[in-house]
Amino acid sequence: MKRLAILGSTGSIGRQTLEVVRAFPDRLQVVALACGDNVPLIREQIAEFNPSLVFTNVEDVSCLSGGTQHLSLKEIASHPDVDMVIVATAGKAGLGVTLAAIRAGKKVALANKEVLVMAGKLITTEAKTNGVDLYPIDSEHSAIWQCLTGEDKEEISKLILTASGGPFRLKTEEQLDAVTPEEALKHPTWQMGVKVTIDSATLMNKGMELIEARWLFDVPLSRIEVVIHPQSIVHSIVEFIDGSSKAQLSMPDMRLPIQYALTYPDRWESPYRQEIDLGKIGLLQFEPVELNRYPCLRLAMLAGEKGGTYPAVMSAADEVAIEMFLSKRIRFTDISGLVAQTLDQHVAINEPSLEEIIAADAWARETAMASIGVAE
Amino acid sequence: MKRLAILGSTGSIGRQTLEVVRAFPDRLQVVALACGDNVPLIREQIAEFNPSLVFTNVEDVSCLSGGTQHLSLKEIASHPDVDMVIVATAGKAGLGVTLAAIRAGKKVALANKEVLVMAGKLITTEAKTNGVDLYPIDSEHSAIWQCLTGEDKEEISKLILTASGGPFRLKTEEQLDAVTPEEALKHPTWQMGVKVTIDSATLMNKGMELIEARWLFDVPLSRIEVVIHPQSIVHSIVEFIDGSSKAQLSMPDMRLPIQYALTYPDRWESPYRQEIDLGKIGLLQFEPVELNRYPCLRLAMLAGEKGGTYPAVMSAADEVAIEMFLSKRIRFTDISGLVAQTLDQHVAINEPSLEEIIAADAWARETAMASIGVAE
Repeated sequence: MKRLAILGSTGSIGRQTLEVVRAFPDRLQVVALACGDNVPLIREQIAEFNPSLVFTNVEDVSCLSGGTQHLSLKEIASHPDVDMVIVATAGKAGLGVTLAAIRAGKKVALANKEVLVMAGKLITTEAKTNGVDLYPIDSEHSAIWQCLTGEDKEEISKLILTASGGPFRLKTEEQLDAVTPEEALKHPTWQMGVKVTIDSATLMNKGMELIEARWLFDVPLSRIEVVIHPQSIVHSIVEFIDGSSKAQLSMPDMRLPIQYALTYPDRWESPYRQEIDLGKIGLLQFEPVELNRYPCLRLAMLAGEKGGTYPAVMSAADEVAIEMFLSKRIRFTDISGLVAQTLDQHVAINEPSLEEIIAADAWARETAMASIGVAE
Repeated sequence: MKRLAILGSTGSIGRQTLEVVRAFPDRLQVVALACGDNVPLIREQIAEFNPSLVFTNVEDVSCLSGGTQHLSLKEIASHPDVDMVIVATAGKAGLGVTLAAIRAGKKVALANKEVLVMAGKLITTEAKTNGVDLYPIDSEHSAIWQCLTGEDKEEISKLILTASGGPFRLKTEEQLDAVTPEEALKHPTWQMGVKVTIDSATLMNKGMELIEARWLFDVPLSRIEVVIHPQSIVHSIVEFIDGSSKAQLSMPDMRLPIQYALTYPDRWESPYRQEIDLGKIGLLQFEPVELNRYPCLRLAMLAGEKGGTYPAVMSAADEVAIEMFLSKRIRFTDISGLVAQTLDQHVAINEPSLEEIIAADAWARETAMASIGVAE
């Protein structure tokens, strides 16, 4: 029985993680649930999964079940009853708990992008020091992880991340200017949270995944590429030094990479698994990525290459830009400009501490907001 | 330094194996070469690679280099100076030497289809008994092997072999009747020997690969499928019980699977490696295989399912049929009929010995020839 702490249980990944648990009641046990403020949903989840540990961001927790113990996120992440911590919280909240889980020697399944984007070096160094494995929950990184099973990392020649290209792949520059938040929130292949959906439309999401891959697999960014694959069936590809490539394929369903992280190194037969019938699918489509069309991707590559506090600044400025776009203060095509402008003003710190990363994040938010005349 | 015996060095696979050796002179050493009767070529090979052991089928070997020792195939396959035996001989000649190599505890790299088609159970049982690994040299089986690295065979749900579909994929039944040997010998993606090229056009080759895969990976035929993929870039696919699939991709070049068998579990950077640029390739095409178009594939599935001496009979009858087609005694579309007719007349033996397999082969040749009025 694997004992799980699911941090961010009311979000998209958290809910799908619980679907996986539901499919394997004899092998997976939820010992802890944590959410922000979606009390109605976590109350249902508590009733169904009966965790002994709970955290919510709301102060009055008297409404929750009496049998649960209320602890902080860090206490949950390092609790002796927990075998694996699933970090599915949004934003920088994941940073501290991930570190706490690593220091407590827990297995960590990472669905939170910011953790490795903001603090990749810090986190992976701590993981190595503590002998902790980081398991990616993300279709692309899971694909690479699966392709690397049994292979020697020294023999990697390239990682190739696939990108759906987002909903605006075929729009002209002019059409992009006029994109509304409603349009941007419709992703062609994946059902995801709001921020990641916009990030998928700008390909900032793919840029962040490049940075994550760099840290997860210890491969320099110069050897990580992106190819557009609108069908989201091939989830990523690893090319080896002998010229052989391995790709992982599956129908787009986040439950599979979630499940793989929970069951690794084993694979379990799930009720929701879907076969791929390539004969029926007929064509797998690929296109080169045009960096001109996706300035956010280029910014992420640049920030990742520079390292230090740059990626944290990029991530924070992007979050502000998306909020501004969703509240219709800036256009879709202004998102990259706001991020670029913030990065330009940043005086970076190399090898930053957690505190310095958090400070850079705060600085970036303030700076981005100020630059479009919004006070925080 | 890996010390190799290359049996069938003047054939297509043998010559390409020597190209691999040529690329890694410090890591691979040819200690033995063997061929049928292509004395001019093996003489060149001996001059270049300086093996200490040689076999040819011609009686007078005085023309060969004086420094080499002339031994039988079995003596070479079990010689103490040999680490790995590459069985790239054509036809049933591979059977005895493969057994000899296995019994001598050598690593065996198999490029000969007949060995596992005719005697899959016998060979894999002997390999298991002797703790010997069989390494496939074949793009499809190498692909499956690579996809299974680090995976648990118990978690395989399906093996999916890709097939180019041969040069006649788009021809009508009527057009197929009129196909000439010259047309059949033009394969769209691979440069191969004569028999395997015709077998690729009828998909008998794919049928034989199904049977080989059944034995190599210990997966029942009912869980091995074929999908048409005319580009020969995706070399095969493994689907796992969790719904995840892994595919191996590379540009069509036999040197890669040959090299992988020689370097396993490592991968070496070769001068001839080609990158795959999926963005440029654009589309990977797949089609379901229509068994009606490919009666030879259906026959192979049937013979493989029945087991015993059936696959040996099928293989022998197919060889006769191809000879008859190449000498224009029968039409392309008659190949499957001749094989089917021979299988129909066969009284099979279950769990046959090597001698019984050889006898079934001889019976099948005689019967197939007799049925079209040709004496052996």
